[in-house]
Amino acid sequence: MQIRVYYEDTDAGGIVYHSNYLNFCERARSEFFFQKGMLPVIENKHFVVRKMNCDFKASAKFGDVVEVTTKLLEMKKASFTIYHEIKKEDRVLFSSEVLLVLVKDGKAQKLTETIQQTLNSLFQA
Amino acid sequence: MQIRVYYEDTDAGGIVYHSNYLNFCERARSEFFFQKGMLPVIENKHFVVRKMNCDFKASAKFGDVVEVTTKLLEMKKASFTIYHEIKKEDRVLFSSEVLLVLVKDGKAQKLTETIQQTLNSLFQA
Amino acid sequence: MQIRVYYEDTDAGGIVYHSNYLNFCERARSEFFFQKGMLPVIENKHFVVRKMNCDFKASAKFGDVVEVTTKLLEMKKASFTIYHEIKKEDRVLFSSEVLLVLVKDGKAQKLTETIQQTLNSLFQA
Amino acid sequence: MQIRVYYEDTDAGGIVYHSNYLNFCERARSEFFFQKGMLPVIENKHFVVRKMNCDFKASAKFGDVVEVTTKLLEMKKASFTIYHEIKKEDRVLFSSEVLLVLVKDGKAQKLTETIQQTLNSLFQA
Repeated sequence: MQIRVYYEDTDAGGIVYHSNYLNFCERARSEFFFQKGMLPVIENKHFVVRKMNCDFKASAKFGDVVEVTTKLLEMKKASFTIYHEIKKEDRVLFSSEVLLVLVKDGKAQKLTETIQQTLNSLFQA
Repeated sequence: MQIRVYYEDTDAGGIVYHSNYLNFCERARSEFFFQKGMLPVIENKHFVVRKMNCDFKASAKFGDVVEVTTKLLEMKKASFTIYHEIKKEDRVLFSSEVLLVLVKDGKAQKLTETIQQTLNSLFQA
Repeated sequence: MQIRVYYEDTDAGGIVYHSNYLNFCERARSEFFFQKGMLPVIENKHFVVRKMNCDFKASAKFGDVVEVTTKLLEMKKASFTIYHEIKKEDRVLFSSEVLLVLVKDGKAQKLTETIQQTLNSLFQA
Repeated sequence: MQIRVYYEDTDAGGIVYHSNYLNFCERARSEFFFQKGMLPVIENKHFVVRKMNCDFKASAKFGDVVEVTTKLLEMKKASFTIYHEIKKEDRVLFSSEVLLVLVKDGKAQKLTETIQQTLNSLFQA
C-alpha cells in the first residue's frame, strides 16, 4: 500500500509526526478488508490494538511516497500479531509489531477457527 | 478557553495546520457542555456543522497559547450560528461563523423552545 | 482524486470529523503539484489559506471512497480562489471556496505573471 | 497534566483513536518545557522518538478527562527513556516507554552533561 505524505501528516520539525506512522499502518490493515468488500469488523466485533512495539529508524517528509507492508506474524486463541514496515524506496523508516484483539462490548473475544481462517486468508494472501 | 499549540497541531510550514483552527473551535463549543456536566447531545440529537465561513488572518506556531471565544450569533427554528475568534494575546488570528444543526438519524431536527433555551443559557452565560 | 475514509478520519459520531474535509481538499491541491514532480512551493513561497466558505451537505463514513474535484475559480494579483467538491458517487457531500495567497516570511506576495501561468497550467489541466 | 477528550480524538468505534494516546504523551513531554518558558529544543537540537513500547489497557471516550504522568526512567549517553501512564481516575488506560534521542540535521547527538542535567531537572521535578 502506497501512501503520500501531505502537510497534515507533518509537524513543525518538517517531518512526519511520529504517531502518524501508526495511522499509516492502520490504514493498511483496514485496506485488506476494504479490498475484499468488507469492513474490518467480524461478527459485529471490532479490532483493537492491545500492545505495540515501534521502531522509528528514519523520517519521511512532506511529498514523500512511502510503502506500508503488512504480515501476519502469529495467531493465538484470543489475539494475533501483525508486523508492519514502512519503507521509502528500499529504506525501512519504521517497523512495528502490533498485537490486536477482537472486542465486543469492551471485552476481548475468542478467535474462533472461522475467524482465524478469515484473518489468515486476508493477511496471508 | 485557552489552548496550547503542540507539535501535532503544526505542519512542515512551521505553523498550525489550517484545519486545526476548526478543531480548536469545536473543542470550545463542546467544553461549554462539559462544564455543565453535559455531553454536547440534546434529546439524543447531535450537533453537525452545516456551513462555515473562515477568515485566517495570522498564524499560531508551536508553543503558542491561544484563546478561543464563542458567541451565539443567531437562533433559528432549525439552525443556529456561532461566532468564534481565536486570539493570541490581543491579536485575532482566526475568526469563523459556524452554522450548526441538530441531527438525528441523519436528519436535521427542529429546535424546540426547550432546546433553544438550553442553547441560549449555555452560550450566553 | 479518490480518498478512502479510514478510522482516523472519523469521530465518535460515526462520520468523518468536519475539519477533515478540509484536509482532503488540501491533499488534492498538493497532489496537483506532486503529479508534476513539484512541491507546492513556488520561488520559495508557500501557499496559505486566507479565507474559506464551506458547505457540509452530507456525511461520509468509515470505508467510503470519496472523490475530490478541484477547479481554479479566479486569479487575482495577490490571491487566487479554488473551488472543491467532495462527492460520494454522484452525491456532493461537501463544497468549498478557498482563497489562497502565496506567502514568504509571513507576508503575502504578488502573483507575478510567471506564477499565474504556472498556477493556471497546473489547475486548468 | 489533564487532557479532555474531544470529538477529534475519537473514531467511529466511539473511543479514542489508538495513536492519539501517543499525542497526549507528547503534549505532556512538551509541556514540561513550556512550563519553564522553554521550547523542547536544546542547543538547536530537537527530540525525536526512536523506540516505543505501548500497552493499551482500556479506552477513553468522548468527554473523558484523562491524566498523563511522565517519569524519566533512564539516561544514557545518546538517548533517554521516559515512562508515561494515562489514567482515568485511578485506572491506567495506557502506558508507554519512549526512547528519545536529540537530533540535529537528522543525526542523533551525544547528551552532554549539561543536557543531561537540564533533562534531569526538568523531568525529575
